[in-house]
Amino acid sequence: MPVLTLAELQAILGGTLQGDEQTRLDSVASLAHAQPHQLGFLVSAKHLAQARSSHAGALIVPESLAADLHQPCLVLANPHAGFAKAAALLQPEPQLQAGIHPTAVVAADAVIGADVCIGPGAVIGSKAKIGPRCQVGALSVIGPNAELDEDCLLHTRVVVQHGCLLGKRVILHPGVVIGADGFGLAWQGDGWLKVPQTGRAILEDDVEVGANTCIDRGALDNTVIETGAKLDNLIQIAHNCRIGRHTAIAACVGIAGSTQIGAYCQIGGAAMIIGHLHICDRVTVSAGTFVAKDIREPGVYTSAQPLMKHEDWKHNAAHLRHLDALVKRVKSLEEKLKKD
Amino acid sequence: MPVLTLAELQAILGGTLQGDEQTRLDSVASLAHAQPHQLGFLVSAKHLAQARSSHAGALIVPESLAADLHQPCLVLANPHAGFAKAAALLQPEPQLQAGIHPTAVVAADAVIGADVCIGPGAVIGSKAKIGPRCQVGALSVIGPNAELDEDCLLHTRVVVQHGCLLGKRVILHPGVVIGADGFGLAWQGDGWLKVPQTGRAILEDDVEVGANTCIDRGALDNTVIETGAKLDNLIQIAHNCRIGRHTAIAACVGIAGSTQIGAYCQIGGAAMIIGHLHICDRVTVSAGTFVAKDIREPGVYTSAQPLMKHEDWKHNAAHLRHLDALVKRVKSLEEKLKKD
Amino acid sequence: MPVLTLAELQAILGGTLQGDEQTRLDSVASLAHAQPHQLGFLVSAKHLAQARSSHAGALIVPESLAADLHQPCLVLANPHAGFAKAAALLQPEPQLQAGIHPTAVVAADAVIGADVCIGPGAVIGSKAKIGPRCQVGALSVIGPNAELDEDCLLHTRVVVQHGCLLGKRVILHPGVVIGADGFGLAWQGDGWLKVPQTGRAILEDDVEVGANTCIDRGALDNTVIETGAKLDNLIQIAHNCRIGRHTAIAACVGIAGSTQIGAYCQIGGAAMIIGHLHICDRVTVSAGTFVAKDIREPGVYTSAQPLMKHEDWKHNAAHLRHLDALVKRVKSLEEKLKKD
Repeated sequence: MPVLTLAELQAILGGTLQGDEQTRLDSVASLAHAQPHQLGFLVSAKHLAQARSSHAGALIVPESLAADLHQPCLVLANPHAGFAKAAALLQPEPQLQAGIHPTAVVAADAVIGADVCIGPGAVIGSKAKIGPRCQVGALSVIGPNAELDEDCLLHTRVVVQHGCLLGKRVILHPGVVIGADGFGLAWQGDGWLKVPQTGRAILEDDVEVGANTCIDRGALDNTVIETGAKLDNLIQIAHNCRIGRHTAIAACVGIAGSTQIGAYCQIGGAAMIIGHLHICDRVTVSAGTFVAKDIREPGVYTSAQPLMKHEDWKHNAAHLRHLDALVKRVKSLEEKLKKD
Repeated sequence: MPVLTLAELQAILGGTLQGDEQTRLDSVASLAHAQPHQLGFLVSAKHLAQARSSHAGALIVPESLAADLHQPCLVLANPHAGFAKAAALLQPEPQLQAGIHPTAVVAADAVIGADVCIGPGAVIGSKAKIGPRCQVGALSVIGPNAELDEDCLLHTRVVVQHGCLLGKRVILHPGVVIGADGFGLAWQGDGWLKVPQTGRAILEDDVEVGANTCIDRGALDNTVIETGAKLDNLIQIAHNCRIGRHTAIAACVGIAGSTQIGAYCQIGGAAMIIGHLHICDRVTVSAGTFVAKDIREPGVYTSAQPLMKHEDWKHNAAHLRHLDALVKRVKSLEEKLKKD
Repeated sequence: MPVLTLAELQAILGGTLQGDEQTRLDSVASLAHAQPHQLGFLVSAKHLAQARSSHAGALIVPESLAADLHQPCLVLANPHAGFAKAAALLQPEPQLQAGIHPTAVVAADAVIGADVCIGPGAVIGSKAKIGPRCQVGALSVIGPNAELDEDCLLHTRVVVQHGCLLGKRVILHPGVVIGADGFGLAWQGDGWLKVPQTGRAILEDDVEVGANTCIDRGALDNTVIETGAKLDNLIQIAHNCRIGRHTAIAACVGIAGSTQIGAYCQIGGAAMIIGHLHICDRVTVSAGTFVAKDIREPGVYTSAQPLMKHEDWKHNAAHLRHLDALVKRVKSLEEKLKKD
């Protein structure tokens, strides 16, 4: 593992130093568990007491908190981002072995860029293009005619189906499926007929997709995940969706077909969004929320039910079935009282 | 890619022609993006204006709309199904290379039918049977004693566990897991004991299962997905469920153990259905709905909460905890007014 | 398949016998489908009539029901646990072939214990440790520096990312992803910066994880699943969660980052729990419930909406948006009546 002094970190990350600039750091840690050879960070006064008692060798902090800390500090305008960069420097992820592993199966007409790593057992289909410096993890499958631009990182056991496109620096975690068929069915009187899904799934630059998430290919047009969008684990993006730039989607979200979500949105975990909707830019959907209509104004939207003790819930929930009747009873009382 | 004239399509699909029957088509497209060499389709008057301005070389349309269109048209009673068939003809999916890939690991006592394709790295267990013309995609695993009938298509990275059965023409998308153990636990006073799951998972003819969906094997009896049922992505079907003929289940649905769902049902995305229920034929469960009791009459059932601005939700949701009290207050008002 | 007499089962499981102790049994079955060569079980009087008419060769039953049954019976204090043990004896799961399959890719510096089985195409990373008697299924990937203690069973196509730790007897079903990156992002003004996830995922002894479930590695500290916890399919456990001893979590549950769940809890299917919460020991969360605040007392908690016919729902749900107004109307009526 690399070792850096605080001064070396400053040379890379900028900011100002406080305390011993020769403090040597070899990894990052939480305030609670950091050791003197480790770097911690602090973004708000909420954790100041914990930071003060931390054994971290140094901290990355905002200017407003630096004076209250006795440890060597690197003061940055955006400590969270700075800490992320420091962590990437100090604890780089394990890299695939250079080159194409002898057990990988690469089609003769696939186009493999410079400095590509392809892991054990990976399968690269006919006419697929793997851009320079891409890493394709063990047991991943890139379908025929799929294309990866530069510097993509596909962890183990990822599938990119035929004809799908990944931009630069796309990260796919294990189990991700890009470009499986959308759920297209035509009723034939006595059963369902499969509707071929001839569109692609396109992930633009800097998209990251979490473990076991599925992004279906388009039915005719494409499914598109725009630049910088980040998706967590176990998410379903159905055919023909468009997810806007820098939108972040937490785990267990489902988005049904043809829905378009704007840029800079945040979709909370387990939110469910039905098909053919438009959600505008800068919308926050709370965790556990069900969205069944367009959202045309930025803001925070919610629908989750509050938690209750089960005994209370039994009484309360029963009334939900009769809410319409209750409203009528109140209205009738109001009318009676008006007459009186 | 194949090229067909409109007349050739009519010879296959039936229907009547309008306009230049020699129009040559090499692919399908949406009304918005179709080019003169592409086939589009229209099912309702809702998209008539878009169809009229489409650059599609030809359209598949219902009789009621044909007169309003200037493009060459194939008029069909079921345009959606006809378009699906045309798409399959014009844009066939990439096929696996014929035969058994040299990197596949096939047990010596597995039974492999005629014209089977087995992709790179796939693993076929002892005494498994792979029927004629099946395609088993790259890195898929067919467990010992599992059986696939004719013409199944298993995309890459599918698992069919030991002893499970697939009928004819079953399609499994990447990441599907058929026949993992159900969640069977016996409490032992100080911890859980695993209950062996000795049943199978059985998928009858023409079942299709979407990416990363799981269908558990039965605990003692079997889990059964009946003929023609269609399942989307990231669905959980627990042990001993039975899903009826031609029922369609959208993504992110969970169905708990031993629940039986009838034929011709439609289960909306992210619906959650608890265990040991019976849902009769021809039931529609809306997206996001929670089902905790039997459904004995066909119809549409719903439980989702409506979306609100978060500020409104805070006020409204708080009252849900006190709905029982509110109902009592209304009752007490009603009684007071009766007395008056 | 092994064949055991009822007397042999008693010698292993204890309990008392009733009827022919030489009854020969070769498998287990449900009461409804059991044949004379099969063992069934009964835990409650609810299924007594079915048990009496069952063709099972013998039954495992509690003492309270034995007198009512004519079949040979093994009477046990915990019939469900006894039946689980009998099933494991009579119908052992198919085992991997002994040794390391020639198509597996094992790093030269990996440490492989005695009697380990590694299936076709599996990949074992640098410095990984695989303890004695572990089975690593076909096409599974164990990352660099990951460690499996003794007797783990990893089914096919499992991923354990670098540095993660499994205790003894851990079972992972197909498609499981242990130790993918948590969803850590820092906002940089114009987009998201990935925050490296440097913690581990740690699964203690006797943990079982269902198909396609994801357990993320920690951001800085670790994600921990404590001894004996059981997780069903398609569950998401985010970074830095801690799941307590012997807690059972049903399918489709999502638990957001840093939430701690106590010991002996039961989390129903599709429950969703937001981040940074504490849930105490011995809590039951009902299926479909959304948890957005700490739970400090044991008990059963629920928030699910009741199912309605869609027409009723339309009327009732509309009022939920105006519940606050309704409560005010009732209050105003109450005040009017007080004055009168």
